[in-house]
Amino acid sequence: MPVSVILSDFTPMRLGEGIPQETLLRETANVFALVQCAIQKPESQEAANRILIETREMVRHYGVSAGYIKQRQANAMENVEITDEEDDIYPDILPRPLQQPRGLPISERMEKFRKAVNGLLEQHYADCGQAPDDIIHVSCTGYMSPSPVQQFTVRNHWNNTIVTHNYHMGCYAAFPAVRSAQGFMAGSFALGRPKSRIDIFHTEYCSLHLNFHRLTPNNIVNMTLFADGFMCYSAFSQDSFDAGRQNGLEILSMAERLIPDSEQEMTWDLGENYFEMNLSPAVPFFIAEHIRDFVESLVAMAGYKLGDIKDDLLFAVHPGGPKILEHIRKRFQLAAEQMRFSWEILYENGNMSSVTVPYIWHAITCDDTIPKGKLVLSMAFGPGLTACGMLMEKV
Amino acid sequence: MPVSVILSDFTPMRLGEGIPQETLLRETANVFALVQCAIQKPESQEAANRILIETREMVRHYGVSAGYIKQRQANAMENVEITDEEDDIYPDILPRPLQQPRGLPISERMEKFRKAVNGLLEQHYADCGQAPDDIIHVSCTGYMSPSPVQQFTVRNHWNNTIVTHNYHMGCYAAFPAVRSAQGFMAGSFALGRPKSRIDIFHTEYCSLHLNFHRLTPNNIVNMTLFADGFMCYSAFSQDSFDAGRQNGLEILSMAERLIPDSEQEMTWDLGENYFEMNLSPAVPFFIAEHIRDFVESLVAMAGYKLGDIKDDLLFAVHPGGPKILEHIRKRFQLAAEQMRFSWEILYENGNMSSVTVPYIWHAITCDDTIPKGKLVLSMAFGPGLTACGMLMEKV
Repeated sequence: MPVSVILSDFTPMRLGEGIPQETLLRETANVFALVQCAIQKPESQEAANRILIETREMVRHYGVSAGYIKQRQANAMENVEITDEEDDIYPDILPRPLQQPRGLPISERMEKFRKAVNGLLEQHYADCGQAPDDIIHVSCTGYMSPSPVQQFTVRNHWNNTIVTHNYHMGCYAAFPAVRSAQGFMAGSFALGRPKSRIDIFHTEYCSLHLNFHRLTPNNIVNMTLFADGFMCYSAFSQDSFDAGRQNGLEILSMAERLIPDSEQEMTWDLGENYFEMNLSPAVPFFIAEHIRDFVESLVAMAGYKLGDIKDDLLFAVHPGGPKILEHIRKRFQLAAEQMRFSWEILYENGNMSSVTVPYIWHAITCDDTIPKGKLVLSMAFGPGLTACGMLMEKV
Repeated sequence: MPVSVILSDFTPMRLGEGIPQETLLRETANVFALVQCAIQKPESQEAANRILIETREMVRHYGVSAGYIKQRQANAMENVEITDEEDDIYPDILPRPLQQPRGLPISERMEKFRKAVNGLLEQHYADCGQAPDDIIHVSCTGYMSPSPVQQFTVRNHWNNTIVTHNYHMGCYAAFPAVRSAQGFMAGSFALGRPKSRIDIFHTEYCSLHLNFHRLTPNNIVNMTLFADGFMCYSAFSQDSFDAGRQNGLEILSMAERLIPDSEQEMTWDLGENYFEMNLSPAVPFFIAEHIRDFVESLVAMAGYKLGDIKDDLLFAVHPGGPKILEHIRKRFQLAAEQMRFSWEILYENGNMSSVTVPYIWHAITCDDTIPKGKLVLSMAFGPGLTACGMLMEKV
């Protein structure tokens, strides 16, 4: 008997309010300039002013504009205001930019992660009547053992809930997490002890790793694109979905592939102060080149031919950045409407790493204009380069 | 149809030779003493000598003796020899103990990890005729994205091999990895695209994180107990196992549980120079207190009563340290023979974190005196505290 797995109960969470992108661009430039002063040690006020002007110009030029992203959660930037007055407020991860331009050591940032995630767990599960069979904790921004999810689980005496860490897989990590959930569900049936609900808990506290020390075009893109994001959703068996859920996305097929010769194009590595990202402008080209074969084989796994269904498909694509969305639209000659959720989530939130695609899934399930039976092709990309895809049906 | 999963093809790997525990105890004490001199800055040769004598005494007193562990792979300690002469050789992660007593920053240690794991992959898969369906990369000692496993996979044009990271779960991580493999196998059958072989690739380069800066009894235990370990094995479907494997371990049941009120007893956290471990001497007591219920329910899941099978079971227990093994033997009133593989692997290798239990599985499958049909109860423990268990049958 095939075991169906349906994603539902998408619940976004927040640590703080979204900050307007205009504000973030301005203050990001200001903090960059302070750190440049710490590095370059200008000998006159004039030289310092020149640094400020040049830095603002670079951030204006390379930063992701407010036309693409309206606001982002970036909790490390909350209340930051630099006016060169005495009461300037610096990012909490960079309390003394002139003296310690790399900011807090990684261990202190991890403590902030623990505290934040702990609060989100308490809040999210406050009214939870029934413990899940599993919680898969997804993150590429905070690692500690025991994790806050393990601590929460044991504190609640959820003795039969199994916690699994899905760490350090970057923007595409919702896909291995869903793949694991589908596997744990099918595996539980195979071992004769069927599970009913597996929670997937994403915590991407990206702003913990803001790196004001590297004033380069690529890093300015990272600093103005990525956002914090938090989300919990569940993978249900057919029976448990039927017992009370209104809508969801049923998994029809899944695929992942590494793209040749692209390993240097996107990297995410541990450092002494922050995790460090390198993201090259070539990423959209690599993806555009390889994506067609990948998608054809993904839909074929579910018994479809891409040509037959393409014009009616929703493309729930991870908005790594505006360029990736544009390349994919062109590659498949899509109508704007077919990718609108990707653009909307990017505009409303920025790139929230692994949480971005679940936000899109959430929007699709909530939108009454998308009928049940609609096929949804979802994709994300991350270091490797890794391409992940899933064909789902709205149910 | 239930999907059987059988573990087989256990292949230990090495970066270097095992170093006699006597040598490691001596040189660990010497390096600790150098770092203590860097911290305390003694003002006379006499004061420095006193530090050396006291440090040696502490390491002798608290370190794990050569009676329990004969040798360990500890690649960061290779060739280390401190005789107070000019040609002293320091650990490669601590090239200037007097000037930089915390040693290399974490980013440089991660580069060593990448290089080492890359070499092991090339060597292990040199004669591999067929690419696996999946590789699950297990580690709590090195994270980078793309990982060396991803880089290797794409370099080999293994386009249909899916890589999953199982990171930061500590000593018990073989269990979630096998649970994932069992899930991916069952999930592939559920989606109508059955897999045949899922590789589990463990790389625990523990000596990268040796911390000579904290001269405490608990840390001396860590420093003289843990070892590097590397292993690949495979999870096979019944059909692919039958097509050529001689012996293996079939999974009958699996369980994991968090132990209440024990979250502070073992921790593993990121730091600026190394990942930092805290391990309290209370761990064996927590485990002994909770283990009986856990094991009873684990064997019940497979349709057995513990009392009926206990005296004939092999206990393949993670030798976290000698104390844990002693507590478990007493708790279940086991014959020494029932746990001998745990003692032997500890003696021959030390605690290799997540790789230790797969070494025990390997030894059991290789040992012709253990007949097919033998039931094997395997357990491991790690941060949480998390207890993991699996009932298997030798096939």
